[in-house]
Amino acid sequence: MSPARTDSERVELANTALYEAVERGDTTAMGELWLDDSGADGIEVSCVHPGWPVLRGRAEVLRSYALIMASTDYIQFFLTDVEVAVAGDTALVTCTENILSGGPAEEEGELGPLVGQLVVATNVFRRVGEQWKVWSHHGSPVLAGREDEEDGPDAADGPAGPDGGAGA
Amino acid sequence: MSPARTDSERVELANTALYEAVERGDTTAMGELWLDDSGADGIEVSCVHPGWPVLRGRAEVLRSYALIMASTDYIQFFLTDVEVAVAGDTALVTCTENILSGGPAEEEGELGPLVGQLVVATNVFRRVGEQWKVWSHHGSPVLAGREDEEDGPDAADGPAGPDGGAGA
Repeated sequence: MSPARTDSERVELANTALYEAVERGDTTAMGELWLDDSGADGIEVSCVHPGWPVLRGRAEVLRSYALIMASTDYIQFFLTDVEVAVAGDTALVTCTENILSGGPAEEEGELGPLVGQLVVATNVFRRVGEQWKVWSHHGSPVLAGREDEEDGPDAADGPAGPDGGAGA
Repeated sequence: MSPARTDSERVELANTALYEAVERGDTTAMGELWLDDSGADGIEVSCVHPGWPVLRGRAEVLRSYALIMASTDYIQFFLTDVEVAVAGDTALVTCTENILSGGPAEEEGELGPLVGQLVVATNVFRRVGEQWKVWSHHGSPVLAGREDEEDGPDAADGPAGPDGGAGA
């Protein structure tokens, strides 16, 4: 990490590293990327995987990643629409995760069927010394996409909101 | 707002106010609750409704709420499992939204069928003077709940992660 990099660039690298750790199944890297929340300041990490309830605290969050990585033979994230905002020692990243993954093989030596998936994420980072650490990850499925619109998604035509059972 | 209140209490009040504004269909209150992101600092608000793509910027976010509120005859949020963490001028709230809502009436003067829905949210706030303003809201459907577990959700038994098509 060159000192010439801006905060915004460093945050984007940390964001990318989070997904690369999942791709590699690298639990050690994952542990280093997340904020150490064992201090007395009451700041706890949190994580919402698509469709999951909230997980809180390093132990629970890292365990969930270990389980996901253990049950995934192949996963690749193509990040698009990445936006970074830095405010003091906090940064907030929103992005679209275009996921290609394969489940456990049905026969030895073969990948399971590949599945494409569209997830949007809000990731929050805290500055710790020279590094940006993950404070919160929230990923959720996009139940109907209008990604190809020139004017961006039109809420009126988007998936149903809280009133329409999108969460059912 | 009494000055004797802690930051954490003030953040929780701001978080509650966000949901109360939706319940009342109060677009003016909604506009006051969200951060003014028109400054030159590049900080933009963002919002993910359950199942939706990312919305960015006050205009798009507030328009989405106006549309949701206009299409919802009745909605009530029972917030549970609310956790607040304050770090400097940023606060992060995670909570479960137990939603009861009614769609447009099929016959005049009657509510549409009531729908229950379980959503988890990560809400980020910025301190602006004495107030805490919403910087980011991300809500997502819980596709299978283990809310009644004494030891908290067990990831191994939770809904499928990125590998399992929870977002499909």
